[in-house]
Parts: sequence; C-alpha cells; structure tokens
Amino acid sequence: MALRCESGRVFVLDQTCLPHEERWIESSSPQDMIGLIQRLAIRGAPLIGVAAAVSLANFASASTSVAKVAASYDDFVAAAKALRAARPTAVNLMAAIDRVLFATTGQDWRERAVEVAEAIFLEDVALCEAMSERGASIIDDGDTILTHCNSGGLATAGIGTALGAIRRAHEQGKKIHVIVDETRPLLQGARLTAWELGQLGIPYTLICDNMAAALMNRKRINKVYVGADRIAKNGDFANKIGTYSLAVLAKHHQIPFYVVAPRTTFDAASADGAAIVVEVRDAAEVRAGRAPKDAPVWNPAFDVTPRSLISGIIFDDRIL
Amino acid sequence: MALRCESGRVFVLDQTCLPHEERWIESSSPQDMIGLIQRLAIRGAPLIGVAAAVSLANFASASTSVAKVAASYDDFVAAAKALRAARPTAVNLMAAIDRVLFATTGQDWRERAVEVAEAIFLEDVALCEAMSERGASIIDDGDTILTHCNSGGLATAGIGTALGAIRRAHEQGKKIHVIVDETRPLLQGARLTAWELGQLGIPYTLICDNMAAALMNRKRINKVYVGADRIAKNGDFANKIGTYSLAVLAKHHQIPFYVVAPRTTFDAASADGAAIVVEVRDAAEVRAGRAPKDAPVWNPAFDVTPRSLISGIIFDDRIL
Repeated sequence: MALRCESGRVFVLDQTCLPHEERWIESSSPQDMIGLIQRLAIRGAPLIGVAAAVSLANFASASTSVAKVAASYDDFVAAAKALRAARPTAVNLMAAIDRVLFATTGQDWRERAVEVAEAIFLEDVALCEAMSERGASIIDDGDTILTHCNSGGLATAGIGTALGAIRRAHEQGKKIHVIVDETRPLLQGARLTAWELGQLGIPYTLICDNMAAALMNRKRINKVYVGADRIAKNGDFANKIGTYSLAVLAKHHQIPFYVVAPRTTFDAASADGAAIVVEVRDAAEVRAGRAPKDAPVWNPAFDVTPRSLISGIIFDDRIL
Repeated sequence: MALRCESGRVFVLDQTCLPHEERWIESSSPQDMIGLIQRLAIRGAPLIGVAAAVSLANFASASTSVAKVAASYDDFVAAAKALRAARPTAVNLMAAIDRVLFATTGQDWRERAVEVAEAIFLEDVALCEAMSERGASIIDDGDTILTHCNSGGLATAGIGTALGAIRRAHEQGKKIHVIVDETRPLLQGARLTAWELGQLGIPYTLICDNMAAALMNRKRINKVYVGADRIAKNGDFANKIGTYSLAVLAKHHQIPFYVVAPRTTFDAASADGAAIVVEVRDAAEVRAGRAPKDAPVWNPAFDVTPRSLISGIIFDDRIL
C-alpha cells in the first residue's frame, strides 16, 4: 500500500526513498500528482492509474479540503488531460482517467468523480486478489521464480500482480525462492521488490540483470513472472526495460514465462506491440554519477515483448 | 596504459577512481599488487598477468629500490604463489607467473625475472596490435558494435583486445558506432569503456545491460565484440558476467558475436567451460548502498559461454 486517502487528503509513499526511508508526501493537486508520477515517487502501472483517478476526484470534490476552492468543470477536464499524459506507456493511467471522465458528464460530476475513483481503487484491490490466486495456482512447491522490476504491493492498490501471485503461493505454504533482478537503471527490484520480500519473509536472492542468463543456464530458475504496463490486442506487451531480454533468454532455456496483469492493463486500441509508445527517460538515470558526465545514453523505460516468446498472460479473469 | 614502471618503481592507475579522477598508486610489493588486483584497482585479464609479473620481478630485483632488502628465493617463490592466486578466473595471471617461475630456476634468477617480466609486458603490447588488426579486418564501415565490460587500453599493456579492434577500425577510417553495456555491478563499461571511447573520439551510446536485447530487436546492432578471461581447449570461454546473456541474445537475433583475446588467454589445461573456476565476489558490490542492507545476493564476476553460441574467437595469430 503506497497510496493513502485520509479525510480528503491524498498521501503517497515516496518510492524513490525506499528501502532506506519510508517517507509519505502529500499530493494536494493533480499537478503535484503529475510530478510524483513523473519522478517515480509513485509508480506501477495499476497504481498510477488509481492514484491519478484519486487525485482527479479530490480536485473535483469541493468538500475535501477547507483551504481548497472548488474546481470548475473546465479545470477538471484540463487536469484530467494533464494527468492522462503524465507518462505515456502504462495504459492503466489512460483507462482510469477515461473512466472518470466518462462518468462525469452530468450535473453530479463532483460526486461521480469521487465514486468512480473509489470504485477504481477498490476494484484494483479485488483484481489483484483474483490474478494473484490464478497466478499462484501455476506455481509449484519448490519453484524458484525470477521476477523483474516491482509488481507487488507498491505497484498496485492491492497485493500486486506478478509479485502478488508469488506472495499468494508463499501464503499457501508452497516453499518458493525468488530471484530478484535489480532492474537498472532505477533499481526497482533491488530497492522495492527486495524490500517487499524481506517484509513478507519470502526467501530471495538479488542479482544484477546480466546474471539471469547464467542462472538459467545452471537450471536454477523454474519460472519467470513479470507484470505489464500495456498488453496489446494480439498479446504483445510492454513492461519494464529488460523484460524482452528475459523472455528471449527464458525461451532459449525452455523456462515458462508468465505475465500477470489486471484487465485494466489490456489495451484493445493497440493492435500489437508496435503501436505501444515507449517512454524514453533522462540520461542521468543511467549515468548515475558514475559514467563520464557527457556520456551519450539511450534510456528507454520499457521494452515490448512479442506474444510468441511467452507461455501465457494471467489476467484476473482468465489465462490467455 | 594503466601500469607504469619508472626507475624500478611500479605505478598503477587506480581504475576504481575512473572516470572522475586519474589517481596513480605505487605498488611497492607483491602484497600491494595482490590488494590492487583484488579490489580491481588494476584489472583486465591481460593486464593483471603483466602487472603480476612486473611486481614479482621488482620483488626479485635487489637493485630496484634503495630502501628495499633483497628477497630470498624462497620469498620470491612464495610471492609468486600468492600473486598467482590473487584472482581465480583469468588464466593470463597464472600463465604469466608460471612463465616467470619457469625461467628463474638458475643462479641468475633475479636478472631472469626482470627480463621475463619485460618480455611479457612488451609481448602483450604486440599481441594487442596483432589481434586488433585481425579484429578490425572483420569490422565493416557503418557497423554498430556492442561491447561489454572493458577490453581496451585499461585492460592490457597495449591498445586492448575487443576494444583494441574497435579502436583500430576507427583509426582505419571506418565509420563505426559503439554500444557500451554499462556492465553491472562494477560498471566497467560505464566508467572505463565510455571514458576510453570519449578520449579516442569514437562515437558511442551507453546503455544498461538489460537494454541490449531491445536494441538488437530493433536491428540496431551489427556485431558483438567482447574480450575473454579464459578460453578452454574446446573454445568455451569465461568473460565478465553478462557475456553469456549477450551470446544467447545475439544468437536469437542472428548477430555475429566475436571474442578477441591473446594466446595468453587460452588455457589448454581447461578441457571445457565446466573446468573454469568462476570467482564469486562480495554482496556489497551488487547492493551498492541501494538494496536492503541484508539483501541476500549472488555476485559471480564471470560467466561461461559455450563455443556453440559464438561466431569466432579472434586470436593474435589466427581466427578460431
């Protein structure tokens, strides 16, 4: 849980400070939330959708803060558009904002915005439960599962997607071990997934991204479980950079590779992977103060994996 | 050039400080040199062989320092054994020490140690020239070449192995672009290869290791060139962790993959890759202050790639 709504105020757990500090920041406007989303203080495809909807609803609701002046409908729509464009790849963000906008065309738009945002929040919790159950059912006792980036409680309003399934398998008493890709450049694996697994008492081993193949070659990995930021109509999907690499490596080593995602990550409007916009981020994230200051860098935040490389997509309501 | 011998004193460019600081450290004993090798202040399979031989010769030679007491032959042999065991994977280290020991069984062992160390140093420079010429001959005008770790002037006594070939192709007027894998955990690509390429004026782009596959999939990489730390009799080879991953990915994308190495990296005593000892290093290198302090880690410094995955090995005297 990295998003809290209390007495009409929205708080975000700043994920850039984890695991060494648990710092909560208030988001008092959509503009605040956009900044938090863009600098990855709040992240995870499902969670940024929920957070954007909550932030928008808060903006709509005049009653949420004594200091706040009620937004006009035009301001509300403008804020929705800005939130929708905060990051380009995860479709959950666009889907959540569109859902709020679709429901708020009448006189009661302020109340409806709040109702829909609450529904999106609670629905994400339920979707996590459903896909985690389904994902856990494929995990066997004794499995060693590789995961990439963070797809747990920090990435959703619930228990997570891929990491939710892993957690559920652990709770079912299955003896599992998790291999955590550190996930350069921003180390969501090393900082966030390792932290979550430590809190949950699930055994894990942290590796650099370039070590996964060597472990696969030693037959030390049984399955790969990852989340997704957008799933195209044909099953191609975008996820954190490095996912495509893992899918090729898993195929070569004949290791089952599963994507775990809620229906809100499916995008029927993207025919295939080529239609998905991949965000390219700042060079400084890769240089990290260690490379030459002027080193030319390519820093895509995501890559696209063709459906042909994967074993299945585990949705909340079905396995594709 | 990261090793200097001046008036009987040995100086090492501390590669852990690059690219932000060029700090030279004196190594005044084999024990000093072992420490420098183990903490990667000096690194690169060919260079640690040369540096160990030079350090040992310096220890043997009574005339090298006014303050130094001449070592006994027993001390000399003990120092040789300790240097030989400083790191376990790169065979150049063992080969260089064995060569010095083999030549120093007579009364003139002090003089012979110095002669052989000088020969090893100069030979490495010549081997670099030869394999770089050969390696450059396969590089085409317009190529974009991916490389991993650092195999340039910092890793050898000469212009390098894989990066030497790339440099030579550039000097021949071929328009090339280099994709530099940052090479976690110690970032030899981001810190050292990027720095060398910048100094040489060779265009490059730095990426995280997990981005290579996405670039290959976009058909942006024509060739992969890497060095080696040990080549077994059957052509399997050990190199910096992440190399095996790249070899699998290159195979999947049908991209030619070449190893560039001097004959001193070939180890006829290792029948195949399974015979190569892979050094496992400290967890702190992977945690890097960002993961939970107690995060369990696997940190192999190298991996082993089977010959079947690669296009060829470019030695100084032949292509295998």
